[in-house]
Amino acid sequence: MNYIEIIGFIAAFLTTAAFLPQVYQTWKTKDVSGLSLPMLILFFIGVLIWLVYGFLKDSPSMIFANSITVISFFLLIYFKFKYTKSK
Amino acid sequence: MNYIEIIGFIAAFLTTAAFLPQVYQTWKTKDVSGLSLPMLILFFIGVLIWLVYGFLKDSPSMIFANSITVISFFLLIYFKFKYTKSK
Repeated sequence: MNYIEIIGFIAAFLTTAAFLPQVYQTWKTKDVSGLSLPMLILFFIGVLIWLVYGFLKDSPSMIFANSITVISFFLLIYFKFKYTKSK
Repeated sequence: MNYIEIIGFIAAFLTTAAFLPQVYQTWKTKDVSGLSLPMLILFFIGVLIWLVYGFLKDSPSMIFANSITVISFFLLIYFKFKYTKSK
């Protein structure tokens, strides 16, 4: 792995890990009003397509990173609907 | 451009465009309590590193997409501090 790919790996790690504190906070606080539903849905579909791209490119790191992000956004969308209705 | 790169382009478009409605909503509503600050900061740093990666890889589409996302997250972090303090 050359240094450019190490930089890419660090970027992928950060942009994947970033949503874990968001999922935790939303789960704990049920505070979803500030989360934009169009953002959640567009990003979820986008990351699903990145996942397909990762499979087509045979890239284990893209498949791994995007799988985690797909799950994070699936949970955020679930929380958004669940906690918006219960108000 | 082969079909795999067209799929990647669609994914990049969606994951970049996704944050525009978030920026708009946060700007309009000042509702930042549901946005996780660690998420904003980790993702911002991650996308900055993706931008560096895009330059090192000479990838105009990565440079373009990540520049827009860096600006989106810069604005969201600014809103987060501004509207948290004013409460």
